[in-house]
Amino acid sequence: MQLNIGLIGFGTIGAGVVKILQKSAGLIEKRTGVRLCLKRIADLDITTSRGVVVGTGLLTTKAEEIIGANDIDVVIELIGGYEPARTIVLSAMRAGKNIVTANKALLSKYWEEIFQTAAECQVAFYAEASVGGGIPLISSITQGLVANEIQEVYGIINGTCNYILTRMSEEGLEFSEALKQAQANGYAEADPAFDIDGIDTAHKLSILSSISFGGHIPLDNISIEGITRITKQDIDYAKELGFVIKLLGIAKRLSANEIEVRVHPAMIPQDHLLASVHDVFNAVYLIGDMVGPMMFYGKGAGQLPTASAIIGDLIMLAHQRKGLAPLLMEGNKIKVRKADSISSKYYLRVTAEDRPGVLADIAGILGGHGISIASCIQKERGEFVPIIMLTHEAEEGKLRAAITKIDSLTEIKDKTVVIRVTG
Amino acid sequence: MQLNIGLIGFGTIGAGVVKILQKSAGLIEKRTGVRLCLKRIADLDITTSRGVVVGTGLLTTKAEEIIGANDIDVVIELIGGYEPARTIVLSAMRAGKNIVTANKALLSKYWEEIFQTAAECQVAFYAEASVGGGIPLISSITQGLVANEIQEVYGIINGTCNYILTRMSEEGLEFSEALKQAQANGYAEADPAFDIDGIDTAHKLSILSSISFGGHIPLDNISIEGITRITKQDIDYAKELGFVIKLLGIAKRLSANEIEVRVHPAMIPQDHLLASVHDVFNAVYLIGDMVGPMMFYGKGAGQLPTASAIIGDLIMLAHQRKGLAPLLMEGNKIKVRKADSISSKYYLRVTAEDRPGVLADIAGILGGHGISIASCIQKERGEFVPIIMLTHEAEEGKLRAAITKIDSLTEIKDKTVVIRVTG
Repeated sequence: MQLNIGLIGFGTIGAGVVKILQKSAGLIEKRTGVRLCLKRIADLDITTSRGVVVGTGLLTTKAEEIIGANDIDVVIELIGGYEPARTIVLSAMRAGKNIVTANKALLSKYWEEIFQTAAECQVAFYAEASVGGGIPLISSITQGLVANEIQEVYGIINGTCNYILTRMSEEGLEFSEALKQAQANGYAEADPAFDIDGIDTAHKLSILSSISFGGHIPLDNISIEGITRITKQDIDYAKELGFVIKLLGIAKRLSANEIEVRVHPAMIPQDHLLASVHDVFNAVYLIGDMVGPMMFYGKGAGQLPTASAIIGDLIMLAHQRKGLAPLLMEGNKIKVRKADSISSKYYLRVTAEDRPGVLADIAGILGGHGISIASCIQKERGEFVPIIMLTHEAEEGKLRAAITKIDSLTEIKDKTVVIRVTG
Repeated sequence: MQLNIGLIGFGTIGAGVVKILQKSAGLIEKRTGVRLCLKRIADLDITTSRGVVVGTGLLTTKAEEIIGANDIDVVIELIGGYEPARTIVLSAMRAGKNIVTANKALLSKYWEEIFQTAAECQVAFYAEASVGGGIPLISSITQGLVANEIQEVYGIINGTCNYILTRMSEEGLEFSEALKQAQANGYAEADPAFDIDGIDTAHKLSILSSISFGGHIPLDNISIEGITRITKQDIDYAKELGFVIKLLGIAKRLSANEIEVRVHPAMIPQDHLLASVHDVFNAVYLIGDMVGPMMFYGKGAGQLPTASAIIGDLIMLAHQRKGLAPLLMEGNKIKVRKADSISSKYYLRVTAEDRPGVLADIAGILGGHGISIASCIQKERGEFVPIIMLTHEAEEGKLRAAITKIDSLTEIKDKTVVIRVTG
């Protein structure tokens, strides 16, 4: 069978799709019986070279020429962002086109609208490339793991942050130095806020948790903390304690219809699999009620890994024409637990005057809020010294209240650093 | 839509399939639109309790009642081994039944016969559960990664061996002690040869490499070495050198139509992801030409993980009815490189008389065979002492010849221990 493709958005990923089709369409047809045939490419800019040669007859500046074409089965949307991507995807579905996209912002925001339209128009919608780049993650959860209720998901799903934290850990760099290195190597944007503030991770976690729990978890329901406050000092202490620091997207089932979902830096035991995920690599660790723990690891971004995921979706589309729409059928109403009432262990770095009684004051405040201390290190001497504490499981709200009280003590110099401990 | 199922072989895994269907058939239908309906169960023993309650009308001692039934779409074969599984699977396909199986022995041996029969009879054949238990591995390679030529595959795919090696490493046990512990915990058979000699790993590697390289790699083409010669001493030295020892199944593409494929214990750098795969867990690390490195991790055995993979196959069958048969279309003629001409780095433990000149003799023999030494440790003193050497990349045949010569020296006490170093 032949699958006729229209590509809208001819940037890096689009060029990757074209490269793979030029190199491997024959192999893919041998493997699957599906001939992938690229009919049209639309982009506002059709003159800049993308590093691949395409017949000029393929190119158009008008997306409508793809949306309205009779001979196109599937639209690959690679514009990114909310608009005009949303309008184009919805119009294409209404014109009977199936959709394959890498657009995480679009899917995390317009989940219901997209799947309702797909169901009404009886077209399929695939988005493997929107989370974890080339890793077959969404297809594994929706197909291979279909018999499972997912209990917990932990994702390292932003390569920029993982690269920065890896450089800080391996080379002893401060955050700002590691960020500069990431920018110099093309792993961070000139304005890096979207990545380092955790927004990109939250978009992907929105999709991952929506798929894992069978109902839309919008961005607004996710508590988000980025990596900008992580210092070399904390990474060093983490190491001493047997941990590494990673930016995690976490979603956990608390009951049949309640979950918690959050993005924040977390300490992970050095011997946990996620601790060995370095540089720009991504990994998702999850627990299914039938399969137990499972991890998927690979390149979370890049031209060819992402294009590889798109090609995988095209083949699944050709074989099934089902897409992710059935997910909507599950339609669970899911409550998200407030960040304040989520429990965790914590790493605290208090900067305090070095005199007798200070530790007792701090421990007293923690105890007064029901928080018990698992271990404590105070090695340095001087006027002000860092006191490192690991707590047992404590509720976020109580912990925050205790920290506010501790930071108001006269013997405390800087704001206390708080990092959650995982695993 | 409804998929009608006949189950042949009602052991642990079969009971797991029934458990999941009883618990989650409703959820699975909501998620996928597919109603999984168990019509019949065949086993020679239909009286022993399997921990699940099934209507007695479902049970039969005659596989033919399932094979010949008009209302059954798919046969789940869970007998295991070569016969009668092969005869039953072939007859079922000839009777128009699709097949889902966990049978690694069957598939690795009768690959061509199975896929030719499936193609002739236009039925689908799925076998996710045959490698890596609950991990969506085969589906990821054949669907999500369909755009990739797989370059290298490294698998920890036998839980028994990984459990034994983990216990040796973590508790300082000798092999025989760790084996006893594995047997006591139900992770090793009374006769453990099939696992500890590497045969089970080779069966799974046969399937994994056949799927990765698009052509049948039979067991006979795989050089196999088990873990019975690994000692506590080697594990300790490995640790000192920054490595862990794992039993790996390895398949590497050498050129378009040549691969190497082997099973043996290997040293892996401590910070490699595979080094963090402990106990009975499985993991497959692979490199695709488009996606780069990727790893899949999870439970490689057990009732519910394996049953989870079988349910995943049923849903893919319901949606696609394609199965793995297209793999046969690729039909590559693949040459397997002889073990002798495969290159690797090596760890050597030579037990030699502790006197001047011995190291020079050994180094001279290695040098004479074109093998250079990367590092060398000799810490202990005594009449006979261990000399630990790491070599640079060397051809297996040359290394073996050098070791034969070294072991014939009068100053050498025991046979030299050789372990390949990976990563």
